[in-house]
Amino acid sequence: MRIAVVGASGYTGLELLRILLRHPNAELAVVTSEQRAGVAVGEAFPSLRGLLDLELERADATAIARRADFAFVALPHGASAPMVQALREGGLAVADLSADFRLRDRAAYARWYGEHAAPALFGRAAYGLPELHRKEIQGADFVAVPGCYPTSTLLPLAPFLRAGWIEPSPIFVDSKSGVSGAGRTLQDGYLFAELDGNARAYKVGGAHRHVPEIEQEASAVAGVEVRVAFVPQLLPAIRGIVTTIYARPRRALGAEEAHGLLEQAYGREPFVRVLPPGETPSLQAVRGGNFCDVAACIDERTGALVLLSALDNLVKGASGQAVQCLNLMRGLPETSGLLEAPLVP
Amino acid sequence: MRIAVVGASGYTGLELLRILLRHPNAELAVVTSEQRAGVAVGEAFPSLRGLLDLELERADATAIARRADFAFVALPHGASAPMVQALREGGLAVADLSADFRLRDRAAYARWYGEHAAPALFGRAAYGLPELHRKEIQGADFVAVPGCYPTSTLLPLAPFLRAGWIEPSPIFVDSKSGVSGAGRTLQDGYLFAELDGNARAYKVGGAHRHVPEIEQEASAVAGVEVRVAFVPQLLPAIRGIVTTIYARPRRALGAEEAHGLLEQAYGREPFVRVLPPGETPSLQAVRGGNFCDVAACIDERTGALVLLSALDNLVKGASGQAVQCLNLMRGLPETSGLLEAPLVP
Amino acid sequence: MRIAVVGASGYTGLELLRILLRHPNAELAVVTSEQRAGVAVGEAFPSLRGLLDLELERADATAIARRADFAFVALPHGASAPMVQALREGGLAVADLSADFRLRDRAAYARWYGEHAAPALFGRAAYGLPELHRKEIQGADFVAVPGCYPTSTLLPLAPFLRAGWIEPSPIFVDSKSGVSGAGRTLQDGYLFAELDGNARAYKVGGAHRHVPEIEQEASAVAGVEVRVAFVPQLLPAIRGIVTTIYARPRRALGAEEAHGLLEQAYGREPFVRVLPPGETPSLQAVRGGNFCDVAACIDERTGALVLLSALDNLVKGASGQAVQCLNLMRGLPETSGLLEAPLVP
Amino acid sequence: MRIAVVGASGYTGLELLRILLRHPNAELAVVTSEQRAGVAVGEAFPSLRGLLDLELERADATAIARRADFAFVALPHGASAPMVQALREGGLAVADLSADFRLRDRAAYARWYGEHAAPALFGRAAYGLPELHRKEIQGADFVAVPGCYPTSTLLPLAPFLRAGWIEPSPIFVDSKSGVSGAGRTLQDGYLFAELDGNARAYKVGGAHRHVPEIEQEASAVAGVEVRVAFVPQLLPAIRGIVTTIYARPRRALGAEEAHGLLEQAYGREPFVRVLPPGETPSLQAVRGGNFCDVAACIDERTGALVLLSALDNLVKGASGQAVQCLNLMRGLPETSGLLEAPLVP
Repeated sequence: MRIAVVGASGYTGLELLRILLRHPNAELAVVTSEQRAGVAVGEAFPSLRGLLDLELERADATAIARRADFAFVALPHGASAPMVQALREGGLAVADLSADFRLRDRAAYARWYGEHAAPALFGRAAYGLPELHRKEIQGADFVAVPGCYPTSTLLPLAPFLRAGWIEPSPIFVDSKSGVSGAGRTLQDGYLFAELDGNARAYKVGGAHRHVPEIEQEASAVAGVEVRVAFVPQLLPAIRGIVTTIYARPRRALGAEEAHGLLEQAYGREPFVRVLPPGETPSLQAVRGGNFCDVAACIDERTGALVLLSALDNLVKGASGQAVQCLNLMRGLPETSGLLEAPLVP
Repeated sequence: MRIAVVGASGYTGLELLRILLRHPNAELAVVTSEQRAGVAVGEAFPSLRGLLDLELERADATAIARRADFAFVALPHGASAPMVQALREGGLAVADLSADFRLRDRAAYARWYGEHAAPALFGRAAYGLPELHRKEIQGADFVAVPGCYPTSTLLPLAPFLRAGWIEPSPIFVDSKSGVSGAGRTLQDGYLFAELDGNARAYKVGGAHRHVPEIEQEASAVAGVEVRVAFVPQLLPAIRGIVTTIYARPRRALGAEEAHGLLEQAYGREPFVRVLPPGETPSLQAVRGGNFCDVAACIDERTGALVLLSALDNLVKGASGQAVQCLNLMRGLPETSGLLEAPLVP
Repeated sequence: MRIAVVGASGYTGLELLRILLRHPNAELAVVTSEQRAGVAVGEAFPSLRGLLDLELERADATAIARRADFAFVALPHGASAPMVQALREGGLAVADLSADFRLRDRAAYARWYGEHAAPALFGRAAYGLPELHRKEIQGADFVAVPGCYPTSTLLPLAPFLRAGWIEPSPIFVDSKSGVSGAGRTLQDGYLFAELDGNARAYKVGGAHRHVPEIEQEASAVAGVEVRVAFVPQLLPAIRGIVTTIYARPRRALGAEEAHGLLEQAYGREPFVRVLPPGETPSLQAVRGGNFCDVAACIDERTGALVLLSALDNLVKGASGQAVQCLNLMRGLPETSGLLEAPLVP
Repeated sequence: MRIAVVGASGYTGLELLRILLRHPNAELAVVTSEQRAGVAVGEAFPSLRGLLDLELERADATAIARRADFAFVALPHGASAPMVQALREGGLAVADLSADFRLRDRAAYARWYGEHAAPALFGRAAYGLPELHRKEIQGADFVAVPGCYPTSTLLPLAPFLRAGWIEPSPIFVDSKSGVSGAGRTLQDGYLFAELDGNARAYKVGGAHRHVPEIEQEASAVAGVEVRVAFVPQLLPAIRGIVTTIYARPRRALGAEEAHGLLEQAYGREPFVRVLPPGETPSLQAVRGGNFCDVAACIDERTGALVLLSALDNLVKGASGQAVQCLNLMRGLPETSGLLEAPLVP
C-alpha cells in the first residue's frame, strides 16, 4: 500500500508518520506540508532523521493520486473537505482526520463550523470508531476519524446507553486534555510558561465543537436523544485525555453489574481495556499507545454511575484510530502496526 | 504575637513559615519537626536560608505554651488531636490544619478516621472557613481549618444551596488537585517519573475522606441533607485545585442570574474573586496567593448549573486560610500578610 | 514614591508589579502596555485581579513624567533607548531592564544589537549589579539592570577573578535557563508541547548576546581580558537559571579555600547565599525570591574549580534586582520589598 | 530466541519489555521481579495490560536457564554479579545492565562500589557500546551494557580523542539527566513536588560512579590517560540526557573540520545521528528512540571545542543499547526492534 499523509506539519500528521513507519504493509509515498514544502522530512522533524528518506511537498491531489493508493488527510476543518473531494475523485481511499465529515446533520455543521466546502460528500463517510461501527468501516473507502473527546466519551458511555441503563439526559462529561489536542497552535495560552503547573476549563456551557458529535453518536446508540453537559479542560501534559462521566442509572446499579457490562462490550476488543474494579485509568498507561482504558464505578453516596476513560489523543484519539480504520478498510489484521507498548515512564 | 508552628516538615508547615515571615504582627517563636529537630530552619529548608534564625525542635506542649501565644498545628490527623489538647490546656489559641476537629458527628469521624484521640475537644472548634463562618471564628480561640477540596467545593456551591436554587442531591463534584495536596508522601505514585505528564482519578465512588466534610457543611448551608458524588483527581502540577461542579437547578436558571448570585455573596470578600462571565478560573492565577477564584455558567444543552473554582491548596486551601483565621481570631485586619500577588508565570 | 512601570505586558513587567505591590514605599502610579492599553490591570493579568486598581495605558513620556518620580522600563532592546531618553529628559530616575545601556563599548553594541537609538545616553547608566557596583548605584539616577545570565555568571565568578586565582581564559560557562527568560515569545519552540520534557542548548559557540556583557564585567573585575565559552541551554521549567562554571586555578586550590573566598565576598550580602560545602544550588530554593545561591567546589580528578549558582531569572535576574537598585538609588533599606521567601514546593 | 528479563520492576526492566515486545526474533519467556512475584505482568505494569500474557516470578537461575536462551539482567549493582554468574554457569548468554562488569580495574571497582560478588567473572564482559566495540560484542556471550552518562559522553568525544585533536585532560563534561536515570528511587528529592520546575547539580567534584567508567573508555580510545571533570545534573524531565563537553583543541580547529570528524566516525551508524552545523541535539528528538544525536561546535571567543549530545537514558542509555548488543551477539540485523521513531510531541 502506497500511503499519502496530507498535512504533516500538525501533530496528528507527524504521529501518522511515526505509526506508519512501523506498519508492515504501509509504504509512505507522499508527505505534504504547505509550510515546509521542499524540506526533507528528517530536517523538518528531527525525531525522524534517518528514518524516512522523503521530501515534504505541497499537496497536489492529482500528483498524490498518481503515487498513492490511500490518503490520510490531517488538515484543519474547512481546508480538509475540498482536498478530500479531490482525492476521492482521483480514486483514492481516504481517512479524514478533520471534523468535516463526522456530522450527519447539515444544519449542525453549518452552525458549528460554517458553510461546508464539499457538500456533495457530506454525510458519505463512515464514522471511524471501529468499536461501534466496525462493519461500516470494513466496507468503506471513505472514513471520518472521530474527534479525541468524542472517542474518550463514547467508548465508556455506549454500552450503558445501548442497554438503556441510564437516563439519556443530562449526562455530565468532565474531560481533561493534554495540550497537543490543540495542535501546534501559536497562542499565548499554549506557551510553556503559561501552561506548566496550570489547568483550567474552557468553552464551558456547551460551546465546544465536539458536543454535537458526541450527542449524534450517543443518540444513535441509545435510540433516543442524548444531551450532554460537556466541560473540556486543559492539563499541563502533552498527550492524553482523561474523562469522567456522571450519569443517573434508571434503576439501582451495582458496581459489579456496571463493570460486567463493560467487560461484555469490550472483553474481546484489542484496544479497549476494561480495568478491574478499584483501578482507575491514567494518562501514563496509554501514552503513545492505541488503547482506551475504561472503568465503571457506582458512587455510594448518590448511586450515580461514574465512568472513567483514558486515551492518548494523538493515537486512539486521532492517528492510531485512523490506522485502525485503514487496517479494517483494507482487510488487514486490525492491530497491524498498532500493538506498540505505551511509553512508561 | 508569638507564634508556634507545630509540624513544619510537611508542606503546609513550610507554607505557614513562608506566609508568617511576611506577616506584620507575627513573630515566629517556635517551629517544631520531629524528624529534623536540632537542625537550623535555613538548613532544613534551603529556600528559607537567611530568612529565619531559629532551630527546629521536638514538639513539647509545655515548652511551647511558655514561649508562644498562638499555635498552628500542622500534624497528620490522629497525631494532631492530643497535641491540640495539650496546647489548649496550656492556654494557647490554636488553629488546627488537620482533619481532627472539622467534623461534628462523632460516628462519622470514627467511620472515616478511627477513634478520636481527644474526645473532650471533639466538636469544639469553629470551622475555619471565614466566608461562611466569620462570626464564629472572630470569637474563637480554637479553629479547625477546612480541607483543601472542601474549600474549593463549598465556596462556589454555598450561595446556590443557601438560595435553594439547586437540587441538594446528587451534586457532582469533579475536583483536580496538584500533588502537594498529598503532602510529602513517599510513595511510588508521587515520584516525578510517575506523575509528570500523567493524570488520574483516585478514591472514586465516595471513598475520599473529604466527602463527609463537604456534605456536613453543604447540608448546614442548605438546611437539608446534601449528597455529593465526589471524584478527586491528581494533576501533574505541584500546587492548586480546580473544581467543576455540576448541579440541577430547581427552575430554569439564566447565566446572569447565576453570576449575580456569586457577586452578591462574594462581591466584598477580599479573597473570593468572582470572574466575569466567559472567564474560567485557572491554577496559574492563584498560584501562591490566598484567593479562590469562582465562576458560574449555565450549560445550554441541558440547563445544568456548572460551577468552577480554583485555589492554591497550600494557601487558601490550608496555610493561608489558617492565617486568615488567625487574623480574625485576634482582631487584626483579615488580609494581614495575605495580599501577596500570585506567582505568574 | 510614585512609580511607573513601562512595558507591563512582558514577564519582567508583570513581575515588577508583583514585587512593587508589596513594597512599603512604592505607589504604582502608571503602568503601560501598548497591546492592552485601556484594559484594567486585573483584567489583563488575572493573577492581579483585586490587587491593583489601575488601567493600562500607552506609554507617553510626558504624561508619565507628570505622574511619576521613578520609572522602570521593561521594553525590548532598541525600543527601550528612546523611551529612557524621553523619561530622563522629563526628569525621572530610571532603571532600564533592557540591554540598551549595559555595554560600555559602542562598537560592541553595534555588532550585537545594531544602531543605538539614544547615543547621547550610551555608557551613562550605572551597571545595576549591587554586589559589584553598590556605590555607583547609590549615587545614580539611571541604572542599567544586568541580564539574567550575566548575573548568574558574575556573582560566583567575580571573587575568583578579583583574587586572581584562576586563568582568565578560557572560562567555560554552562548555563541552563527556564523558559520565561525568553519572555512571552510566540514561537513554536516555546510551546508547552515542544518544551515539556525537553532540553537543549542554543546559540552555542559564542553567539548569545549576553557574552559581551559577561566579558565586559568579568574583565573589569579581573583587571585583564576575560574570555568565556558560554553555552546557554533551555530547561523545561518556567523560572530560574542554574549555571555551572569551569575554570582552571592558577595554583592548586583547596575546596575550603574556594568556599572561604565566596564567604568572604558575600557573607554579609542579604541576597547572595553561600551554600555550605556539599550542598548545591537548586532552582527550587530560589523560585520567586531575590536570592542568588552560590557554591564552589574543586574537582578531584582535574583540580578544576567548579562554581555553581542558581537564581530566579525574573527576580534576581531582572525585576527583583531592579527594585534592589531602586532601593539603593533612593536611599531606602536595600531589602525593602524583597525579603519574600521563595515558593516551595 | 527465548528471552529472560531479570529484574523487571525497575525502569530499565520495564523498558526492556517495551522494546522486546516489538522485536521480531524475541520471545519473552521469563520475567522476574522479587517484589511483584506471582502478579501478572499486565497487572503490575498497567501500560502492558493485554500485551503480554506472563506472570512475574522470583529470579531462579536454574529455572531461567531451562526456559530461556538469553538473559538481560537489570538488577542493581552488587545484586547483579551473583545472578549473572549463575546464569552464565547455566549456559545463558547475558547482557548485564548493571555496573558490575563495566570496569576493568578491580581496585577501581572496590573503591567505587565495594567488594565484587563474582570476582571470577570480573573483566570478562565485552563493553557493550557497539559504535566503539562492535567486533568484541559480535563474538561475545557476555556483555556489560554501558552507563547512560558514559554513553552520552563517549560517543561525541571518542572521535576527537582517537584523532588526538584535543588535550586529554582536563575535559569538562556537563551532563543533565532526566529523573528516570535514578530508577524508581523512593527518596524525597525524586518526588514530583520537589522536582517539577527544579534543576540542580549533584555529586559535583568527581564523586559520581560513572567517572571511572568514562575515564577508562576514554583513555582506551585516546591511548593516553584522560581526566574528566564531570558534573551530573538533574532535570525536570522523565527521560533523556543532554551533555555538553568542553575541550581544548591541540591546534586551532575549524567548525567544519570538527563536524567532519563526527560525520566520518558516525556517517554510517544507524543510531548515532550527526546533526548539521547550527542544529543542537534535544531530548525531544530522541525520546523513546535508540538514537544518540551529536553535534560539534567551535566557540568563537576561546577556540574551545564544544560537543553536544542527546539520548534517551532508558533506550540508547540502557535497554535499547542492550538489545542492540543482543542483535550483534546473535548475528541479527543490528537494528532489529530498534528503529522505532521517537515520541514527538
